[in-house]
Amino acid sequence: MIQIYRNYAEFKQREVGEDTEAKRKAVLDIIRQVREKGDQALFAFTEAFDKVKLTQLQVPLERIEQADQNQDPLFVSSLQEAAERIRAFHQKQKKDSWFMTEEDGTILGQRLTAMDRVGIYVPGGTAAYPSSVLMNAIPAQVAGVGEIVMVSPPNQEGTIHPHVLLAAKILGIKEVYAIGGAQAVAALAYGTESIKPVDKIVGPGNIYVALAKREVFGQVGIDMIAGPSEIAIVADEAANPVYIAADLLSQAEHDPMASSILFTPSFSLAEEVQKEVERQLQTLPREKIAREAIDQYGGIIVVNHLDEAFEQVNLLAPEHLELMVEQPFDWLAKVKHAGAIFLGRYSSEPVGDYFAGPNHVLPTSGTARFSSPLNVDDFMKKSSIIFYSKQAFFSHGKKIIALAEQEGLHAHGRAIQVRLEGENNE
Amino acid sequence: MIQIYRNYAEFKQREVGEDTEAKRKAVLDIIRQVREKGDQALFAFTEAFDKVKLTQLQVPLERIEQADQNQDPLFVSSLQEAAERIRAFHQKQKKDSWFMTEEDGTILGQRLTAMDRVGIYVPGGTAAYPSSVLMNAIPAQVAGVGEIVMVSPPNQEGTIHPHVLLAAKILGIKEVYAIGGAQAVAALAYGTESIKPVDKIVGPGNIYVALAKREVFGQVGIDMIAGPSEIAIVADEAANPVYIAADLLSQAEHDPMASSILFTPSFSLAEEVQKEVERQLQTLPREKIAREAIDQYGGIIVVNHLDEAFEQVNLLAPEHLELMVEQPFDWLAKVKHAGAIFLGRYSSEPVGDYFAGPNHVLPTSGTARFSSPLNVDDFMKKSSIIFYSKQAFFSHGKKIIALAEQEGLHAHGRAIQVRLEGENNE
Repeated sequence: MIQIYRNYAEFKQREVGEDTEAKRKAVLDIIRQVREKGDQALFAFTEAFDKVKLTQLQVPLERIEQADQNQDPLFVSSLQEAAERIRAFHQKQKKDSWFMTEEDGTILGQRLTAMDRVGIYVPGGTAAYPSSVLMNAIPAQVAGVGEIVMVSPPNQEGTIHPHVLLAAKILGIKEVYAIGGAQAVAALAYGTESIKPVDKIVGPGNIYVALAKREVFGQVGIDMIAGPSEIAIVADEAANPVYIAADLLSQAEHDPMASSILFTPSFSLAEEVQKEVERQLQTLPREKIAREAIDQYGGIIVVNHLDEAFEQVNLLAPEHLELMVEQPFDWLAKVKHAGAIFLGRYSSEPVGDYFAGPNHVLPTSGTARFSSPLNVDDFMKKSSIIFYSKQAFFSHGKKIIALAEQEGLHAHGRAIQVRLEGENNE
Repeated sequence: MIQIYRNYAEFKQREVGEDTEAKRKAVLDIIRQVREKGDQALFAFTEAFDKVKLTQLQVPLERIEQADQNQDPLFVSSLQEAAERIRAFHQKQKKDSWFMTEEDGTILGQRLTAMDRVGIYVPGGTAAYPSSVLMNAIPAQVAGVGEIVMVSPPNQEGTIHPHVLLAAKILGIKEVYAIGGAQAVAALAYGTESIKPVDKIVGPGNIYVALAKREVFGQVGIDMIAGPSEIAIVADEAANPVYIAADLLSQAEHDPMASSILFTPSFSLAEEVQKEVERQLQTLPREKIAREAIDQYGGIIVVNHLDEAFEQVNLLAPEHLELMVEQPFDWLAKVKHAGAIFLGRYSSEPVGDYFAGPNHVLPTSGTARFSSPLNVDDFMKKSSIIFYSKQAFFSHGKKIIALAEQEGLHAHGRAIQVRLEGENNE
């Protein structure tokens, strides 16, 4: 049963730090072998870990083209509409290069360009998450990334779940490989005979995928390494306990480590939600996972007033935050850290997971203190532009030399000096 | 002597991958001890590594206040003017939150907020780099970070180089600790009795600092881990060989691993630069370092035409790129990847290192393919905003359920279903 606490400090916090040294060693070995043996290592690891003998790594284009066959039409059209909404939102994120000119003729600026080639990791297993394909690939497409390639572990037939391929088809992604795990990350980072290396790898995965991404960081860019996720709900006495319970459980069903926490000043609401969570749990298909999450990492914190709720939410820095209060916009400025903020009674978390438009790849485990939802910026890079005028150069030259000399970098000073001497300063 | 090549492929590439497993183990142990023993571990490690017995960790405020005493006035005023220019440039980077409204009443948006507390690592040793303090701290200040704290290893007097403190004074930074190495990174990430933990750690450091940052990534944010740096110069036959040689050497004097490469279609320019590098090297105070860098990782690549030069530059994705060609802006669009691009004869790299305004913390070792100069965005985070209207909810509800059900996430579907059932849909 979900427990009621009087104080967030009493609440049992997650201790996520698992000892991963042995797994890390295994991952380092996989990466080394992929770098040395290329495709051959990919075939061998796929046989060992995914228990399937592939004859080719790339998924044939006709499989992607046919992925909408035998699918529920409402599912297909909903996925298409979701893609359109996600694209519309992310287009608002796209920024332009800019320049500033100074009176003396100097031009300074920041140029934005898209990355050339990006790899998206899509987890395998029995479930398939086509929404995750949309959320990872669309920001890259909006950024203008030239090549987007997808990898996902093969199933027993040596191919990828048709829902994932359907998402690829909707987005026009044509380069898909049926490989997963640390070996897929290594192949994307370093390349093999049949897979060209990428500039960045994004997308969720198991602990081996996460460790491999951490190791190849620097060779390629990576997104945040996701930890167990959480939802915090701030509710006043007018909020609906049935909706709150349902939203807490929608997070809890993800993972036994997921955390679902309600903050409310109303003790009667707390008790109603407690009962309602129990009632709804009993008929939930993923009851076992959700119950484990609720028992271990769920909680209801009864605060003295709403201001106190926000103080505690800011300590948590939750991935998802629902404001189920009257006049939710009045409280928005109190939120310092959260991945996504859902305001009002109709903004249930699954609305954002699937359909509203903002990204569902969000900073977890308190990392909202310093990181952001996946967005178009994550697939672009900046270059500084410096065009110094002769006038600016002669006006600043001696100052630059003074700074360089004080740092003991005399060759820096000389690069200025040779120009001061070599140019006629009219 | 700097060698001339006919092709970039012949050129000896850097192999940076040093085996760091033993150092990593040492770093893991340092982090563990700082987490367990707090300040006590900091004092002990400082005595062991920096050979100085501290009585307090924090640098007294009066030391910072007095840091402009006994300094060269031109140096002080130049540092102040540089800070102003850097601030003016970075202010142009600051972005606003935004919202979009839909006809049905839905509001979606992206809120930007500054991080609460950021730590800046400043390397110690015999040299001091006040310019690095400016470049790391000013973007954080422009972002609006509430607390900026600085750490730097103590010298034999148990304090920090006065040039570094001068930079702190100019910027108004008051919280400075005389600690360095992996122990400083651990203290910033996890906190001790006297040091409050931060949300992000930025700034350059030695291999132990880099490894420690990599380990605490996730607990806090970090900037890129810098590798050896490089300059590429593209020059046509009209370019001045004296300037080119001076600029190549200004990079080479940093570090024996630094790489200085000229691309030119002119064989006669190549020969002149070769001689000029040798001539300038002979009187350089840091000749030994620069010569080692030039011999090992310097080179002149004679290409068939300028287009070919840009193809090869894009493979290198250099940290610094100078375009010493007629009409440099005509060539800008050919550059795909570079940290900072310097256009024209007066835009020598040290102009950007110290004074122009753009940041000198740049992506090294080819990481410009996927990363950016340090900038204001690095100290802010985004939160998605979702306020769904009743009309949008009823129009999309069944589609969201279809998507959730196909992913097997029934509690997600139910969070929508209970609202569709619970609300009167007028």
